Amino acid sequence: MKIKRIEHIAIAVKSIKAMRDIFENKLGIEMEYEEHLPEHSTSLAMFPIGQTYLELLQSDKPGTGTSKWIEERGEGLFHICLEVEDIDGAMAELRGKGVGFQTEKPMIGHGNCRIVFLDPKSTGNLVIELAEMPKGGVHGAKHPAE
Amino acid sequence: MKIKRIEHIAIAVKSIKAMRDIFENKLGIEMEYEEHLPEHSTSLAMFPIGQTYLELLQSDKPGTGTSKWIEERGEGLFHICLEVEDIDGAMAELRGKGVGFQTEKPMIGHGNCRIVFLDPKSTGNLVIELAEMPKGGVHGAKHPAE
Repeated sequence: MKIKRIEHIAIAVKSIKAMRDIFENKLGIEMEYEEHLPEHSTSLAMFPIGQTYLELLQSDKPGTGTSKWIEERGEGLFHICLEVEDIDGAMAELRGKGVGFQTEKPMIGHGNCRIVFLDPKSTGNLVIELAEMPKGGVHGAKHPAE
Repeated sequence: MKIKRIEHIAIAVKSIKAMRDIFENKLGIEMEYEEHLPEHSTSLAMFPIGQTYLELLQSDKPGTGTSKWIEERGEGLFHICLEVEDIDGAMAELRGKGVGFQTEKPMIGHGNCRIVFLDPKSTGNLVIELAEMPKGGVHGAKHPAE
């Protein structure tokens, strides 16, 4: 499995607006794009730094992964997302090493990526996502890594 | 303040050895270097992915920042470290915007970097470190970002 880069670091927040204000007006980190993913009941905002994004995640409702994280641990760093070239191949290779996944198959995530989450039981409770970028890049934009 | 990259993502662990085993033998992420910092009562191990390291942090004793984090939130993602060119200039600029710091001046951290932590009260409880690389790079090695 070739890991190309850390695609993003996800931060669970109650209010994207409040953290965006800190990022942009205190730290000088500007937003590149935002999305609402109704099938995940989640809004996100992406802030590039070098080849990696900081991703703010805000849930629409209780009961989602993001909401549960905040309930149990408070707002803050939630997971890291590793870009791979071939997510199906990466899943097959990891399964061969005894790694489990939260879903049987990849889902569609931010920017139309194919994504999957590893089972934290396989990773010492670290929450790790894999992502395969869509052809043509995210939102048709040239990707920071390229 | 120019942020060059996310230099590392720190993960607080009880055992570097146990997480290193997961990184190397399941995920294929190899360690580049490890250090013990007696003045911080901490051991660390660094695993490069693209231009960013995953940093495993293990404390020598109770009462350190890493130990308190694990007590309060459990093992897992702890902080992000942003590389800046001029840490004194960055601190002055941030102070002008009302951002506080955990120490008055930078300390010496991993790989002989000059580091400082922002006061989480200024950053919506996100733990953010700034680092200025030593001349000649960390451990004399060419840095992944270069």
